[in-house]
Amino acid sequence: MNTELDFQKFHGLDPKALGSASEAMLEEALETLVSGIDRLDQSAADKMQERLDGKIKPLRSLGVLEDIASQIAGIMGTPEPKINGRAVLLMAGDNGVVVEGVSAAPQEITAQMFYSYLRGEAGINVLARHGGAEVICTDIGIVSPLDPPALMARRVKNGTDNISKGPAMTRREALQAILTGAQIAAEAIDAGINLLATGEVGIGNTTPSAALISVFTGHSVEEVTGRGTGLKDEALKHKESIIKRAIEVNQPDPADPVGVLSKVGGLEIAALSGAILEAAYRRVPVILDGIISTAAALAAAKLAPHCAEYMISSHNSEEKGHEIGLRQLGINFRLDFHMRLGEGTGAALMFPMVDAALKIADEMATFNAAGVTTGEF
Amino acid sequence: MNTELDFQKFHGLDPKALGSASEAMLEEALETLVSGIDRLDQSAADKMQERLDGKIKPLRSLGVLEDIASQIAGIMGTPEPKINGRAVLLMAGDNGVVVEGVSAAPQEITAQMFYSYLRGEAGINVLARHGGAEVICTDIGIVSPLDPPALMARRVKNGTDNISKGPAMTRREALQAILTGAQIAAEAIDAGINLLATGEVGIGNTTPSAALISVFTGHSVEEVTGRGTGLKDEALKHKESIIKRAIEVNQPDPADPVGVLSKVGGLEIAALSGAILEAAYRRVPVILDGIISTAAALAAAKLAPHCAEYMISSHNSEEKGHEIGLRQLGINFRLDFHMRLGEGTGAALMFPMVDAALKIADEMATFNAAGVTTGEF
Repeated sequence: MNTELDFQKFHGLDPKALGSASEAMLEEALETLVSGIDRLDQSAADKMQERLDGKIKPLRSLGVLEDIASQIAGIMGTPEPKINGRAVLLMAGDNGVVVEGVSAAPQEITAQMFYSYLRGEAGINVLARHGGAEVICTDIGIVSPLDPPALMARRVKNGTDNISKGPAMTRREALQAILTGAQIAAEAIDAGINLLATGEVGIGNTTPSAALISVFTGHSVEEVTGRGTGLKDEALKHKESIIKRAIEVNQPDPADPVGVLSKVGGLEIAALSGAILEAAYRRVPVILDGIISTAAALAAAKLAPHCAEYMISSHNSEEKGHEIGLRQLGINFRLDFHMRLGEGTGAALMFPMVDAALKIADEMATFNAAGVTTGEF
Repeated sequence: MNTELDFQKFHGLDPKALGSASEAMLEEALETLVSGIDRLDQSAADKMQERLDGKIKPLRSLGVLEDIASQIAGIMGTPEPKINGRAVLLMAGDNGVVVEGVSAAPQEITAQMFYSYLRGEAGINVLARHGGAEVICTDIGIVSPLDPPALMARRVKNGTDNISKGPAMTRREALQAILTGAQIAAEAIDAGINLLATGEVGIGNTTPSAALISVFTGHSVEEVTGRGTGLKDEALKHKESIIKRAIEVNQPDPADPVGVLSKVGGLEIAALSGAILEAAYRRVPVILDGIISTAAALAAAKLAPHCAEYMISSHNSEEKGHEIGLRQLGINFRLDFHMRLGEGTGAALMFPMVDAALKIADEMATFNAAGVTTGEF
């Protein structure tokens, strides 16, 4: 079988067809996606850095702005990259583990917020608009029905199962969620978008995220578990015990990222992993949001280590495991804004920073043109 | 004498008239400015926070964005503040201490860069434009002549004297520089600008800045001295010894901020102190840039402690004393971008963040309107 062709087929597939594919077919499509992820174009990145070094400023004095410009040049394979369109991919899913009382917020909020995103009135809509981006909002696995039913076209499953009792979903469902995320990213990229950001909604999803980060980084559950939307001390202890039980019951193997996602992950998290893989496959930079996005990124990077080179970090969320996850990916947070909303709100704040980085390259004068003395300066 | 009237007069004065005023008159005008600085309007800040608490998100989950929105409401005295115009006040001056070899860059760059700012082609021009701001660029004390001579209309002195041998300037000159900075801020505010950012150019000015931060915070010279535009280890040691000698020779008294500025400060730094005081006096938020702006802010806050409430921090520059200075002001950096360019470039990156903060308040839906369940969420 020609796997290249099969993978291409998945990109154009009707969501229903993706839903009816066999586990073996999905596994093969993922393998093709993963093996198609290459390194940055270091020559393009170096040429961008040369451009920046000629600008009227002390060498490398614009720090992270220069790093971002060079990284994007390397990703896009040109020393003169342009952002043509941008989007936040917001994946929505419910998490069966909420029955254990791990979240301060009621589960019905996932669906209520989903409608708010569609109406364009939530935090992510405001911040994405501010950054010139659209919000592409997908139901991957909300538990309740949506109206109109077409909103559920991509849904893999009506919420995950309770991870403290068994796996979140089957391996086949995890593969379908990953590839659905990849498909959504592919559609956005086909439509001209070449800068993505990750976002999510899913009451309870800091619980699977902390489980994933613990499994992928080897840090203890206590080190990576935070208060979500606002747990008090005792509730936090309870949440930690549920995460420990989930890991104990499911015995996830960190060498098998799809298995880890299916056992202690979430549908929206798996979809984000797929979107991140697709971004890297298509050489599109992807801005990571908070702890949930970072858990998804860890799974993606475990599948395809080079894909970390395509990630741009944003904020340092209030969730404890976030920074630990970023460190494992080899990237640092840039915005210290004490945010913990999710949705992609932290990532969206980086859109103006990416623009700033590229404008430095395009609009600043060079030493030669400006008649400014060079040297150590 | 009616000092209120006298102070008002300084705002409308021809720069030449400010230059010919007596030390006593300048001292009195500064006293009026300082004593006119009041606290934030806490009720307006609280009302903004109430607005934010009604939005569809976990309470306070937008962290610093919410803090900034509330702070600006308190500054402007309304729960619905609007930014009508914004500017970077870029003060340029030379520093006599460069003869001691404290900078890796030649002094001629100050004037060369000044022309670049006027041509709109430097880093700050790019980043200010990106943030919707103009750059108001003033020669407070460049050492060399400028062409046309009108560019020198505000110049207080042709660069400071070598602080390792004696005072940077006379007390009268320091007062004139402070009040010139206040006057420039006042003109911008009169023209409709109600969000300011501080910036500067002045080869060698991390040296007086480190001296000021050491004097105002009590931290040792080694703790607050950085590499400027790129000093190597040995040159850094030398710079530290020059700063120690400047403090030893001048014996600045931290209880007399004008005296400290005149002894170990700089003309562009004193002008920034004045601009910051004027911003607070007129209830306009002011975004601080790096170590030089922070040194100026420390002097301003020593003169009028409430003015720290009007400051919005931006980045954590690579200069060592920066974070120590910010801590003394009771504020934290927000952007971890490893920048060390100066000019106001770090501050300019906060313009889109301030916009984001106010858009959250203005554009997000409330729980009531959106039909989202409240509670712990």
